[in-house]
Amino acid sequence: MPIDFPNQHIADMVAADRAAEWLTVQPVSIRTGAATVELTVAEHMCNGHGTCHGGVLFTLADIALSYASNSVGALNVAAHADIQYVTPAQLGQRLRATATERMRYGRSGRNGIYDIPVTVADTGELVAIFTGRVVQVAQRSERGS
Amino acid sequence: MPIDFPNQHIADMVAADRAAEWLTVQPVSIRTGAATVELTVAEHMCNGHGTCHGGVLFTLADIALSYASNSVGALNVAAHADIQYVTPAQLGQRLRATATERMRYGRSGRNGIYDIPVTVADTGELVAIFTGRVVQVAQRSERGS
Amino acid sequence: MPIDFPNQHIADMVAADRAAEWLTVQPVSIRTGAATVELTVAEHMCNGHGTCHGGVLFTLADIALSYASNSVGALNVAAHADIQYVTPAQLGQRLRATATERMRYGRSGRNGIYDIPVTVADTGELVAIFTGRVVQVAQRSERGS
Amino acid sequence: MPIDFPNQHIADMVAADRAAEWLTVQPVSIRTGAATVELTVAEHMCNGHGTCHGGVLFTLADIALSYASNSVGALNVAAHADIQYVTPAQLGQRLRATATERMRYGRSGRNGIYDIPVTVADTGELVAIFTGRVVQVAQRSERGS
Repeated sequence: MPIDFPNQHIADMVAADRAAEWLTVQPVSIRTGAATVELTVAEHMCNGHGTCHGGVLFTLADIALSYASNSVGALNVAAHADIQYVTPAQLGQRLRATATERMRYGRSGRNGIYDIPVTVADTGELVAIFTGRVVQVAQRSERGS
Repeated sequence: MPIDFPNQHIADMVAADRAAEWLTVQPVSIRTGAATVELTVAEHMCNGHGTCHGGVLFTLADIALSYASNSVGALNVAAHADIQYVTPAQLGQRLRATATERMRYGRSGRNGIYDIPVTVADTGELVAIFTGRVVQVAQRSERGS
Repeated sequence: MPIDFPNQHIADMVAADRAAEWLTVQPVSIRTGAATVELTVAEHMCNGHGTCHGGVLFTLADIALSYASNSVGALNVAAHADIQYVTPAQLGQRLRATATERMRYGRSGRNGIYDIPVTVADTGELVAIFTGRVVQVAQRSERGS
Repeated sequence: MPIDFPNQHIADMVAADRAAEWLTVQPVSIRTGAATVELTVAEHMCNGHGTCHGGVLFTLADIALSYASNSVGALNVAAHADIQYVTPAQLGQRLRATATERMRYGRSGRNGIYDIPVTVADTGELVAIFTGRVVQVAQRSERGS
């Protein structure tokens, strides 16, 4: 099902995101300052302990961060992120990362913060908590070109 | 070139790490409490901004964390990690993550901390700084079985 | 106005907290897994830039963390904390830190996470976001002795 | 013993730092991008567990951050900081926080990172590890006025 994009920039960015495609991450919804993405844990995403690699959880959340922060009409890049692991994710589970803005451009004028829980999509069980800090590196025109 | 492993546990763990294989991450050296791993940035690892995805940098460092923290004779899992992005990495660059112990099992008795810079392998330029916090979930026998 | 404590442990701990008294931090409410504390920014709490020192904001939130995490019937100590500064706080402002549990005892079995915004008490303006990670170091008996 | 300041800005800033005075923090050395400060743990700095309050450790390190980052010829404010507690500090111990630059102005152009271990001054035992991220909010003239 196609999703509605808040502007053309973010639509172009999602279309160009080779890493998301490679990781089989699907965007579910993108709004201004918010994004939800999902993936299903495949065998090659599991680590030596037999559970989903932390890097996969991180990357899923990081993609949500990228979509949410770049939907606000400015070019943002991640400056710092942290992830707290709560419960291991298992092979075959559908995982969902939901990014919401906690602050847009605070003390320094150009830093935004996003809160991104990663959950099991059908139960809502919390798998990890990701916090992303972005820096605005450029303004964008109203027309989005 | 085959690498020397400090014990059989970590050798088995590296051999079973499907995610590292998928990401084309190679171990370079593993010692007790330390590990160096590398990968070359491929086109499918690049994001919508045309540079290496933060999730790839994170995962490279996370694999170094996993190898370093599981080479000490105990089963450790990551509890929390953060990454500070310093300089974007480019397509084709060889990246290196080097994990060293900053603390093994502090105040709570079972938490270790690892410092993991990610650099461009041939120039040493700093790309990101990763800090990993692990929790010991089990002791291992001397024999490693 | 005296506050209701959920158990005697936490009442004793608040009474013994010399640092909170020194910093003129007042508990406003303490429930199981939650705590609200306040202070008024005095001149000696201001730094060389003329605004409330980050360490004062941190300590206010850290006291809320301590009260919230030690009200759950177990002895918890902080293992890791981070603070994101949003808006500078000014001399004379009344500040409030509200700790709520985001997770109690996850992957490692003994780690809890608390989310603690610091706000201006009468306007709700966000001053800082504090995240605290605690480790349970002892169980407590039902009687609290 | 008076200390040498790398420029007049930082000398003025240290002289105006009421919070440092209140906390009985003494600067030991300040150089461009580096600072060492100390305090002795007093009874009113101890928490309900009988050890030095985490907020005191944080503030000691935060003062070192402030001095180090404002000695480089630009006005910097802290944007984000985290602290990992390693070993509790005890009443009467002399503590030292040493800030060194890990990165000055990276990806976003204006963010610096400082690594600040807190140790027991006479033994070097590690008490906490503080990481501070600063944002440059203004340039300063060469003359420092």
